[in-house]
Amino acid sequence: MRYSKRILETPSSFIRDILKVTEDPSIISFAGGLPNPISFPQEALKKASCDIIDKYGAKVFQYSTTQGYLKLRQIIADKYNANFGLDIKPENVLILTGSQQALDLMGKVLLNPGDKVIIEEPGYLGAIQAFMMFEPEFIPVTLEDDGLNLDRLEAALKQDRVKFAYLVPNFQNPTGLTYSKERREKICELFKKYDVVLIEDDPYGELRFKGGNLPYIGAGRFDRSVLLGTFSKTVTPGMRIGYIITQDNELMTHLITAKQSSDLHSNIFSQYLVAEYLEHNALKDHISKITALYKEQSDAMLAAMEEYFPKYVKYTQPEGGMFIWVTLPEGKSALDLFYKAMEKKVAFVPGDPFYVGKHGVNTFRLNYTNSTPEMIREGIKRLAEVL
Amino acid sequence: MRYSKRILETPSSFIRDILKVTEDPSIISFAGGLPNPISFPQEALKKASCDIIDKYGAKVFQYSTTQGYLKLRQIIADKYNANFGLDIKPENVLILTGSQQALDLMGKVLLNPGDKVIIEEPGYLGAIQAFMMFEPEFIPVTLEDDGLNLDRLEAALKQDRVKFAYLVPNFQNPTGLTYSKERREKICELFKKYDVVLIEDDPYGELRFKGGNLPYIGAGRFDRSVLLGTFSKTVTPGMRIGYIITQDNELMTHLITAKQSSDLHSNIFSQYLVAEYLEHNALKDHISKITALYKEQSDAMLAAMEEYFPKYVKYTQPEGGMFIWVTLPEGKSALDLFYKAMEKKVAFVPGDPFYVGKHGVNTFRLNYTNSTPEMIREGIKRLAEVL
Repeated sequence: MRYSKRILETPSSFIRDILKVTEDPSIISFAGGLPNPISFPQEALKKASCDIIDKYGAKVFQYSTTQGYLKLRQIIADKYNANFGLDIKPENVLILTGSQQALDLMGKVLLNPGDKVIIEEPGYLGAIQAFMMFEPEFIPVTLEDDGLNLDRLEAALKQDRVKFAYLVPNFQNPTGLTYSKERREKICELFKKYDVVLIEDDPYGELRFKGGNLPYIGAGRFDRSVLLGTFSKTVTPGMRIGYIITQDNELMTHLITAKQSSDLHSNIFSQYLVAEYLEHNALKDHISKITALYKEQSDAMLAAMEEYFPKYVKYTQPEGGMFIWVTLPEGKSALDLFYKAMEKKVAFVPGDPFYVGKHGVNTFRLNYTNSTPEMIREGIKRLAEVL
Repeated sequence: MRYSKRILETPSSFIRDILKVTEDPSIISFAGGLPNPISFPQEALKKASCDIIDKYGAKVFQYSTTQGYLKLRQIIADKYNANFGLDIKPENVLILTGSQQALDLMGKVLLNPGDKVIIEEPGYLGAIQAFMMFEPEFIPVTLEDDGLNLDRLEAALKQDRVKFAYLVPNFQNPTGLTYSKERREKICELFKKYDVVLIEDDPYGELRFKGGNLPYIGAGRFDRSVLLGTFSKTVTPGMRIGYIITQDNELMTHLITAKQSSDLHSNIFSQYLVAEYLEHNALKDHISKITALYKEQSDAMLAAMEEYFPKYVKYTQPEGGMFIWVTLPEGKSALDLFYKAMEKKVAFVPGDPFYVGKHGVNTFRLNYTNSTPEMIREGIKRLAEVL
């Protein structure tokens, strides 16, 4: 069969291959990126699923509009307006099949082959994979403790054919890093100077267990600012309900056209279900249960690393989210370490797939949300033995 | 903002604009393409949604695999094997976010700009729109009463850079036509001669209310044959559960990669729900209720057309599905008729969007599944007054 250039240039997912290896239940796995099942309010969702069928009948089973259920879009707009002082209207919100779909649609709507995309280095591999389908040239910009390196960002923004930058400013995947308030301000000023779209992806922002909330870099502060969100980390990922927010009407029109051709509309039953759940339950109380657990797990991992890891191994200290990023001494390969660690029955994700065109890197990602503090302690101890 | 070439060349959906006009409840609308709500087994789905939460707990809310729920893929494979004597295995089935997603993924995996796509003329406008995103050249082949015109099909297959053909052999949208057994055989022979993929889309096949089932053109008979299916017309469209079947492992691998970058995986709650429903309910009995209603509605429309329409107006006689296709005398515009009909408060879809590059055509589509026989009779009578 004669395939497209785009698919032939997309490598099969390295991380998926790793996750297969780690399915063995005797392995302590810090490799995944799944939310803890505590974050699914099962009983409330069960009640809501009966209630919406009784209340709305055929509507929750029928075809629906591409833009999504109006009440859910209103709830989302209200939340951002209340929490961040924004002025978002339901027509600025497009419901998606997971916020992953936003990456596909933004690529579809903006990228011609050879256009450029600014990404964080290291960056979210699902975004790299999604954008790759549209054959762009990537410009990786170093992610430092406080956010993107400003000089490198400006040098990237100055290049021709740069269409957009993709950033995850809160508890980033894979590093767990959060952009500081000052760095956000400076990045905002830079974006105001250049005709480049800023995609701010915020899947983890509500999972903060230390420090206070920070304003978005772009939302409400300049045109060409696009915000992505999801219910995957707070209600359920399995129902694939994410969204994109933009106040640019022309962009929204094109996104709707692209979404219609991709899957007509997102699951309407699940849209009603999430709206019903949010209307009748206190999401904040639910999230505080999740963050209490994640804080305990994160603390356990950091304490074990402090105790067992040699001092030359560096790691991030997340204020929320699901990941810690570890840096080995220069020249050490995290992939080599992975194979040694697997012999000790402990798994993580070597840093390689989070970079474009770098291999044998000295960094790796740890996830702490799916192990008990005891397992975390044991896993880190075993990992330290092969460092 | 600087958009991609593909999105700038995609017109906004003409049919969506028409459907907005026809939302007025005083209008008798034959314009839509929605299944009748009788096709949603609401009580059984309500029970199944509680049962899967009780039985499977967190699994129905968590992230899942890109390929889809194994049990559902097994049920789908079993059904095709039993009904059509095929030899499909669960690994040949990929669960999608509606079968619309298959059109997006097939485009992503196969099409480079300028590649050619064979479509039926007239053809499904959602497919035209989806493929357009990958900037192909369309080769429309005339659809006759028995199926595609064979000479034109062969001339199309002979062209260079033809990647695939997209056909809807049962109760086609928009015409309601069904390919005859003989024509299927001859088309199969042609495809065996050329290196072109055949996409056979069959959303309506189970909605047969006259005649007997016919074999697929390609499935199980040659490589490069791809089958699309959906639960949208028999269980619920709102949950967006469709699928693609291919026995080509390399193609499947590429489709999975493309799906992963598009939306990670389809709604897993709904996959469990549909599987649970199918395991504990007799789908055939449920479908026989739908087809009994659609037969009554189709008969009512055909009888009214026979009574009220002038003899020079021609129309198809569907054996199943949801549509009748009307042909006015040469030179008459269905779009002009649409505006006159709207004054009489009756709506349909003018044929234009079902063609690539033709305007002011003399054909239009009628849907009969969403009106009572009385409304159908009244609507056809009004329409006849402006013919």
